Amino acid sequence: MNTKKILTSVIIINCFIHQISAQISTSKITAFRKSNEQNIIKEYLQFVGIPNETSDTANINRNAAYVSMMLQKRGIKTSLLYPSVGNPVVFGEVKVPGAVKTIIFYAHYDGQPVNPKQWSKGLKPFEPVFITAPIEQGGSIVSYNDGDPVNDTWRLSGRASADDKAGVMCIINAYDAIIKNGGQPTCNIKFFFEGEEEKGSPHIAEILKLNKQSLSSDLWIICDGARHPTGKKILSFGVRGDVNMFLTIYGPQRPLHSGNFGNWAPNPGQWMVQLLAGMKDDNGRVKIKGFYDDAIPLTKQELTAISKMPPVESGLRNELGIAKPDGNGQSFMILLNEPSLNINGIQSGNVGSMASNVIPAKAEAVLDLRLVPGNDVDRQMKKVVDHIRSKGYYVIDHEPTHEDRIQHTRIIKITNEFGYNAQRTSMELPIAKEVAAAIQTTINYPLILIPGTGGSLPLFIFEKVLGAKVITLPLVNYDNNQHAENENVRLDYLWEGIETVAAVMQLK
Amino acid sequence: MNTKKILTSVIIINCFIHQISAQISTSKITAFRKSNEQNIIKEYLQFVGIPNETSDTANINRNAAYVSMMLQKRGIKTSLLYPSVGNPVVFGEVKVPGAVKTIIFYAHYDGQPVNPKQWSKGLKPFEPVFITAPIEQGGSIVSYNDGDPVNDTWRLSGRASADDKAGVMCIINAYDAIIKNGGQPTCNIKFFFEGEEEKGSPHIAEILKLNKQSLSSDLWIICDGARHPTGKKILSFGVRGDVNMFLTIYGPQRPLHSGNFGNWAPNPGQWMVQLLAGMKDDNGRVKIKGFYDDAIPLTKQELTAISKMPPVESGLRNELGIAKPDGNGQSFMILLNEPSLNINGIQSGNVGSMASNVIPAKAEAVLDLRLVPGNDVDRQMKKVVDHIRSKGYYVIDHEPTHEDRIQHTRIIKITNEFGYNAQRTSMELPIAKEVAAAIQTTINYPLILIPGTGGSLPLFIFEKVLGAKVITLPLVNYDNNQHAENENVRLDYLWEGIETVAAVMQLK
Repeated sequence: MNTKKILTSVIIINCFIHQISAQISTSKITAFRKSNEQNIIKEYLQFVGIPNETSDTANINRNAAYVSMMLQKRGIKTSLLYPSVGNPVVFGEVKVPGAVKTIIFYAHYDGQPVNPKQWSKGLKPFEPVFITAPIEQGGSIVSYNDGDPVNDTWRLSGRASADDKAGVMCIINAYDAIIKNGGQPTCNIKFFFEGEEEKGSPHIAEILKLNKQSLSSDLWIICDGARHPTGKKILSFGVRGDVNMFLTIYGPQRPLHSGNFGNWAPNPGQWMVQLLAGMKDDNGRVKIKGFYDDAIPLTKQELTAISKMPPVESGLRNELGIAKPDGNGQSFMILLNEPSLNINGIQSGNVGSMASNVIPAKAEAVLDLRLVPGNDVDRQMKKVVDHIRSKGYYVIDHEPTHEDRIQHTRIIKITNEFGYNAQRTSMELPIAKEVAAAIQTTINYPLILIPGTGGSLPLFIFEKVLGAKVITLPLVNYDNNQHAENENVRLDYLWEGIETVAAVMQLK
Repeated sequence: MNTKKILTSVIIINCFIHQISAQISTSKITAFRKSNEQNIIKEYLQFVGIPNETSDTANINRNAAYVSMMLQKRGIKTSLLYPSVGNPVVFGEVKVPGAVKTIIFYAHYDGQPVNPKQWSKGLKPFEPVFITAPIEQGGSIVSYNDGDPVNDTWRLSGRASADDKAGVMCIINAYDAIIKNGGQPTCNIKFFFEGEEEKGSPHIAEILKLNKQSLSSDLWIICDGARHPTGKKILSFGVRGDVNMFLTIYGPQRPLHSGNFGNWAPNPGQWMVQLLAGMKDDNGRVKIKGFYDDAIPLTKQELTAISKMPPVESGLRNELGIAKPDGNGQSFMILLNEPSLNINGIQSGNVGSMASNVIPAKAEAVLDLRLVPGNDVDRQMKKVVDHIRSKGYYVIDHEPTHEDRIQHTRIIKITNEFGYNAQRTSMELPIAKEVAAAIQTTINYPLILIPGTGGSLPLFIFEKVLGAKVITLPLVNYDNNQHAENENVRLDYLWEGIETVAAVMQLK
């Protein structure tokens, strides 16, 4: 028995020595990736081919099983962390003998809802193909057969190809590249792949609470989001909070012929446009009372970091065909560090060839509120609801009864999905600085440090439940159409993502 | 040869005498209908089961063939009147020996576009079923087998069951009931069943021009639209004109992540709501400059007719769940005789479970303009376009180029479908008075005479091309959901429609 103990110690010491001596350079990571490219591509195509809308439980389970399989294939022990109701986290863990720090790498395997009709001709959300460039910019589908060599500037098209199956792929292949090169991470590594991020992570708090012990760490690294529009690598210290509000305004109890009732029966679409129009001015600034009031201003250090970022606006305006952006001339990054209100969607009746001459029975809209530090998700929503009430609306959270309709001229149903506050980590955190230094070894320009990105992740909850430190490491091309039709990831970003994560796994 | 001529004359005289002696009473028409009910129902179910969206050419042709077959089965010679491009009119003609007047009965066999998803559970646009009451009012689907007796208060559900296959069915079965009772119409009868009404009758002018001779008449009777909300029969002397305008506002060239770009990238949905909100005030009155200016006021006689109509507003408000109608307290019928602007549909991004966190690339809306005498369709549209231009929009009729996008902050594409002006016939026209008298024999309350209904038909063109006189005879229940999901016709309205048309075919 004792013999065994001694032997174990020896092995640990050996591993430790081995690990120190075997720092795997970026060029070796790249070389391994190249030699293994066909396997990665094959796995990636299969992975994106599994439908992954958050609410599609059957397919979500197939995704979780596929992610588990990919981890196990690389020698990583996995388990599924379930909430009481909801989709599981795929969890994996690698203990590195002698390592004193632990980093948890996060990505999510679920994707935004899809409307296949909105995808361009030939592209389908869950039938991944390679395209030569974004379809909107004249790209075309590559005639590709299994095993053909790929071009690094091609893009893999499909829902979640970028957001965030790319994160999963980069993390597991970075680990694989280190190990297969005979190396070891310098830290203990945990893998945490979420399945409900695109629904606002409604059960993340429960999962974190239930697994506090296994989820202890020195740092969470969130591999999600896009690199800088210049293509440069970035490291982000904060995210905006986020919540969706669902509005339904009710008109006549049934749709009416617009001729037989037009001018007399109120049109809920007209009411909706009037309500939403009143929420913003012509420059896109929110007019709702107190909307910007409780945001904590950026620190001097954060403003300095922003000022060092490469300018993007003129390039973006040209690329996106925007003659004049919103925001009264304030800079892109400053605007992204303010709370926002966006009309994600609005619908009443039908448009185009499906349109008919009716006064619809209802009008629906979905608002997206982004929050910054200082905002509270409930308080921010209350400002919107108070604004709606001030316009004479009777606010309910259910379908109106006939009595409701007869008694109240303007009725609105307001519901919301789970939302969360913003999160920001100090740019002075030592381990975050070590991560930045590791990434810096993979590039020949200064890594871009961002106090806070415009996107959202429920990182606030990681801090609150676990007391964790969290930073975000975006990996994919910024023109990836994430959350929209024709989502895609550029292959060279995927390859460089593997290199970036591998460097971080070996930080000094 | 001469013998034949003489014989013919004798037959004509005989027919004339026979016709005068054989006026078929409403009760006989009813009796025949009852005995023939199963055949009518069977045909009606088959007819509504043929999809009939105006643009669905293959199925439109199946409808035209079915209508021709129904006419031929009743001994009526038919032909198809084609425009150079487009759907045919099914035309039929019956010459009544000795008759001196000619009436053309009009209905249309095409239907509004359908969105099957919007139909209530179990109802499908082109799989007609019987329902016990409107689904919105708790009605349920009847478990019906071929040959089962039907209940007169049931409704037949399906696209065009009311608008306007009901018109076709009433006209041909009214004729059938007269003939099968051994009677004859007192006028020559022509049958004119259009196939493009729901697209605004884009080729009706051409068809009328091409067939001027065969389409000569003393009166057109348009069997379309709904009876009075009280259920009483009506005869209408005018219709509003109609045109649809299609608006598309452009945002970023591709959909953007609402977090990564929100506050900076303009949202075309926000612009659309602001544009549309500015077109009307809180009471639904149009604010566009000159919108109401060129409408010819109602005559004293027309205002008197309106004042005699039964009041409907309190009943409608209760039934439709409308606490306060639009229109600053003006009466229902007065409002329906004014020009209108309705948002038929608006869409940007997605709502409900398909919503995602994006700044959409475009926002679409469809406007429905109704016109009254004095309005001109092009002039009325120009008022809307001028209004949009006054809000700073660059107006185009095609997808914007990249140059367009870079140069113009706000870009809108505006197109329109074929539209037409309003039409109004004098309430003093002698043959129209005879029609009213014939209908009056079928009811025990005063027939409601309406100067102009709110709905639209291209009757302006009939006047312009043929110099024709036109009145409208609505037949179906007013709560038929026409143009919308869950369209239905109540069977007793169908039965009474047959009686009404049969009386008109035998006017004195």
